[in-house]
Amino acid sequence: MVAIGVALSSALILSLFFTPVLIHVLTKRNFGQFIRQDGPTGHYTKRGTPTMGGIVIIGATTVAWILAHLVSGRMPGFSAFLLMFLFIGAGLIGFIDDYIKISKQRSLGLHPSAKIIGQLSIGTIFTLLALHHPNADGITAASFHISVVRDTVITLDSWGLIIGFILIIAWLNFLVAAWSNGVNLTDGLDGLATGASLFSFGAYTAVSLWQWYQNCPTADDSVLQACYEVRDPRDLAIISAAIVGACFGFLWWNTSPAQIFMGDTGSLALGGAFAGLSILSRTEFLAVIIGGLFVVIVMSDVIQIGVFKLTRKRVFRMAPLHHHFELKGWPEVTIVVRFWIIAGLFAVLGIALFYAEWVVRAL
Amino acid sequence: MVAIGVALSSALILSLFFTPVLIHVLTKRNFGQFIRQDGPTGHYTKRGTPTMGGIVIIGATTVAWILAHLVSGRMPGFSAFLLMFLFIGAGLIGFIDDYIKISKQRSLGLHPSAKIIGQLSIGTIFTLLALHHPNADGITAASFHISVVRDTVITLDSWGLIIGFILIIAWLNFLVAAWSNGVNLTDGLDGLATGASLFSFGAYTAVSLWQWYQNCPTADDSVLQACYEVRDPRDLAIISAAIVGACFGFLWWNTSPAQIFMGDTGSLALGGAFAGLSILSRTEFLAVIIGGLFVVIVMSDVIQIGVFKLTRKRVFRMAPLHHHFELKGWPEVTIVVRFWIIAGLFAVLGIALFYAEWVVRAL
Repeated sequence: MVAIGVALSSALILSLFFTPVLIHVLTKRNFGQFIRQDGPTGHYTKRGTPTMGGIVIIGATTVAWILAHLVSGRMPGFSAFLLMFLFIGAGLIGFIDDYIKISKQRSLGLHPSAKIIGQLSIGTIFTLLALHHPNADGITAASFHISVVRDTVITLDSWGLIIGFILIIAWLNFLVAAWSNGVNLTDGLDGLATGASLFSFGAYTAVSLWQWYQNCPTADDSVLQACYEVRDPRDLAIISAAIVGACFGFLWWNTSPAQIFMGDTGSLALGGAFAGLSILSRTEFLAVIIGGLFVVIVMSDVIQIGVFKLTRKRVFRMAPLHHHFELKGWPEVTIVVRFWIIAGLFAVLGIALFYAEWVVRAL
Repeated sequence: MVAIGVALSSALILSLFFTPVLIHVLTKRNFGQFIRQDGPTGHYTKRGTPTMGGIVIIGATTVAWILAHLVSGRMPGFSAFLLMFLFIGAGLIGFIDDYIKISKQRSLGLHPSAKIIGQLSIGTIFTLLALHHPNADGITAASFHISVVRDTVITLDSWGLIIGFILIIAWLNFLVAAWSNGVNLTDGLDGLATGASLFSFGAYTAVSLWQWYQNCPTADDSVLQACYEVRDPRDLAIISAAIVGACFGFLWWNTSPAQIFMGDTGSLALGGAFAGLSILSRTEFLAVIIGGLFVVIVMSDVIQIGVFKLTRKRVFRMAPLHHHFELKGWPEVTIVVRFWIIAGLFAVLGIALFYAEWVVRAL
């Protein structure tokens, strides 16, 4: 608990104080955001706002994570390094993307195929490493099983080792790509993705903490049938809490009117970390609830494009969903706060389902 | 835990759906807000927005509280009725105040002396009742002790029973008046008090839950030296959670641009409930941290008036503090979100101190 408190509070303080430094540096170098040509026209006024704020989110989280372990004196487990690898790796691809956008003053950034190859490499390395190095109880960080609240009986390795490996690499890469896209699309209004992340990562802090208290090697005998087989849940809680703190401090500067955007640096890193948490905590499908707002926003984009291709009609005035409400005339801040409320509801619902499953088993 | 989940979620759903109903009713009856003549001039545009939204907050909380007990099948303890009495009683005074303001179209509402007499009556009845009806372990809802994180050794009853009674009545009435004022003053920008309450009552949900887990009659023998002597902590957590849910749903409509204000109905009720929670959970001084934003805002008003009377100079461009930043040119939503962040920090700090005290004792 001390480590979690240190992680959250130091990340918060770091991002609160270093975001203005970054704003200063980026503004001086004229590193402003290049606004998408296909967004609402009202967004043209946002041109010139510095982006790549994700640098602070990643930096603050990493330093806070290290500090938390220095204070508690307990060294992080293997899962912690896996999650940080995914978080920083995905952020790095986002950073290259942002950097090209700004230096070349073009809206599209990194070539799509280069971006995909980069993401696939990181996702695949993550998967392969996560399936190795079991702990003393023989539990690896990721598993061949698909998970809802814990590993299900549907196991992929019964298909034979080679097919299993291909499937698990594809599945985990899909998760990383999907969540990165989710946070990326959500990052379209001032403070929206940052605030929504607070709730999603807050929920994962709670989930991981509970998995730590009820972890199989240490859980009480009376509730052993409900224990969790997860590697290093405490480390997941610490990193998750650090991300909450970093986003909280960043929000101070990122809220309307934003003085800085997180950019792809931030959204890909947060998406990667969210995917990583869902994989390492064995809650891949529960994450669809916990990060429900991201899912809704991605689906609005998918539905819009799909229906348009089939019928030439638009379901929403503009996709993703927040632009639809913007064109309907809702003020930007109203959409943001209401979407935060929805993100909060999803987070609470996710925790409730997670806890309910435990109660049913423990009874 | 089930009762807490039911309380939070049903209050949320109720306030989410009944706030627009109230907006409709009030708008139809032309029950708009009468804006203070001494606020920033930009606020004149807010004239006509319906107020008394506190009706929904109180109603949703009360119904959710009842529902939670119907679902869990466990009947509430004495403290629950005390807290609900203070919550609804303070809200009633606020309602009369709001009603007079609107029907007489004057900004000042209920006559100050009538308001004070009303508040004192409710505070005194609360105090007297809270000192009676101990539970099976001899613990009353309130105590003669002043509390920080738990009852301190400084005890008022050593002064003799009569002086003790007068002091405790004065002290608890002061707390109720102070917190009501705090929430009332904070309720000056769209969504500000509602969002800040989310964090403060969220923190009290956590504090009360921990007091329930570590309550003296049931706590583990190994940590008995750190157990809490609090009557009905679970009930306090349930009501606190219901208030969080009610505020969350209300915020959907109360966020910028507000379609309804909570009015004195809401702010006095929330202030009363917050004071009640601090008294019944024996954390009177810890509440200064947990509700730190309210304290800062009250203090800004006190400092402004005090310094002006002494030196004829103004410390802030306008008090309370949020108007100062408004006149400095910060956009309203920036102030609101940043103040929410500060409220969140205070809530986290309060929980951290509360937990740290337990850890030090339990070691």
